[in-house]
Amino acid sequence: MKYLSIDSSSRRLLLLGVNEDKTMGVTLHNVGRHGTYLAPAVKDLLEYLQMSVKELDFIGCGIGPGSLTGLRVGISTVKGLAYPFDIPVISFCSLDLLAYNNYLSSAVVMRRGREGYYYWRKYRFEGYKPVPVEEPGFDSVDKLKSGILTKNEVLIFENEQEKEQFEGYDSLIALPPSPEIMKQIIVKAFEAGETIDVRELKPYYLQKSVAELNWERKHGKST
Amino acid sequence: MKYLSIDSSSRRLLLLGVNEDKTMGVTLHNVGRHGTYLAPAVKDLLEYLQMSVKELDFIGCGIGPGSLTGLRVGISTVKGLAYPFDIPVISFCSLDLLAYNNYLSSAVVMRRGREGYYYWRKYRFEGYKPVPVEEPGFDSVDKLKSGILTKNEVLIFENEQEKEQFEGYDSLIALPPSPEIMKQIIVKAFEAGETIDVRELKPYYLQKSVAELNWERKHGKST
Repeated sequence: MKYLSIDSSSRRLLLLGVNEDKTMGVTLHNVGRHGTYLAPAVKDLLEYLQMSVKELDFIGCGIGPGSLTGLRVGISTVKGLAYPFDIPVISFCSLDLLAYNNYLSSAVVMRRGREGYYYWRKYRFEGYKPVPVEEPGFDSVDKLKSGILTKNEVLIFENEQEKEQFEGYDSLIALPPSPEIMKQIIVKAFEAGETIDVRELKPYYLQKSVAELNWERKHGKST
Repeated sequence: MKYLSIDSSSRRLLLLGVNEDKTMGVTLHNVGRHGTYLAPAVKDLLEYLQMSVKELDFIGCGIGPGSLTGLRVGISTVKGLAYPFDIPVISFCSLDLLAYNNYLSSAVVMRRGREGYYYWRKYRFEGYKPVPVEEPGFDSVDKLKSGILTKNEVLIFENEQEKEQFEGYDSLIALPPSPEIMKQIIVKAFEAGETIDVRELKPYYLQKSVAELNWERKHGKST
């Protein structure tokens, strides 16, 4: 089987290519704008693995939640690759990449959105693997503390700063998400028959962009 | 700080480059012989990060235990890069890459050596991070079961097949080791002042090569 996968939902760009038993992963963290590096990195990866886009059985794509600009670049790139050859797509929640910490009983992955707000998703663990409990959410720190989070869940953050607002909760810093963790997620989804048509590919837009919020402030909510 | 790191102790080649806040990781699993891919991959990585070898503050190198041929390629490459500019080296035990599973109290990383033998290293966990308890060992399955392993340690294997010989033990498959886990290991060692001169760099040779064993069988043990 031959496939490619991209997650561009944070400042860490993850890229995976598989050609039968050969696997190549590339991680670019803070290296530059995703828009500058993603296309050349895909090209280099295909060359290392000696395969071409039209041979791909599917393309994986992280659809956030996370950086809106990053997601637009990643999803546009996947669309550009998949459309011409009508390659099926596997979309997955980018927070799942952070849930791979073994031996937890239940956990909540937390990713900072705009000031005072967090994306979150809850997981239980089966055979040391995380299984999402529900769709991801987007809520204020106050709301999270006053009802959504419970004290017997472990909070998983991406870095120390994000952890600070949740003192008193059992929490840890996620292992850095890697292309090979992405591989486990998309292969599981592919085996479960969860491919979609590339025309259906869209990001989780849980957070309105600052531009949208400003527009609503000035002009009232659109319907 | 600028640095590079390589682990070539298994069929998964790990490569890391850091240029100040920029990090790039490359994983090549089964892609081909390490001897063919390592040098060009290092060159590409340096280009992405816009840095040159002579600027490096140090070079990290996994010294096994693991594939003897793989280790020779990786260590030779690090020597080739470090010698001309006398760049300090951080060497680390490759089994540490497999120990990064959170929320364990104590664990033993297991890596298959020749038929019926395993490399192993024990870890305790501090603040969710593994700390090695002693130097790695190399022993037969029988000896491991009859004294070295205890039932309250979790065994960490690289794949399902290696696990089969240890039925009845609490065990799990390691998360795939990643360049960014290697980053955590070498940065910790660098901060602890554990650099060595490149002339001191050598692999863990816990296992005699098949060639050495055959020689001894024919000619008697050398002294």
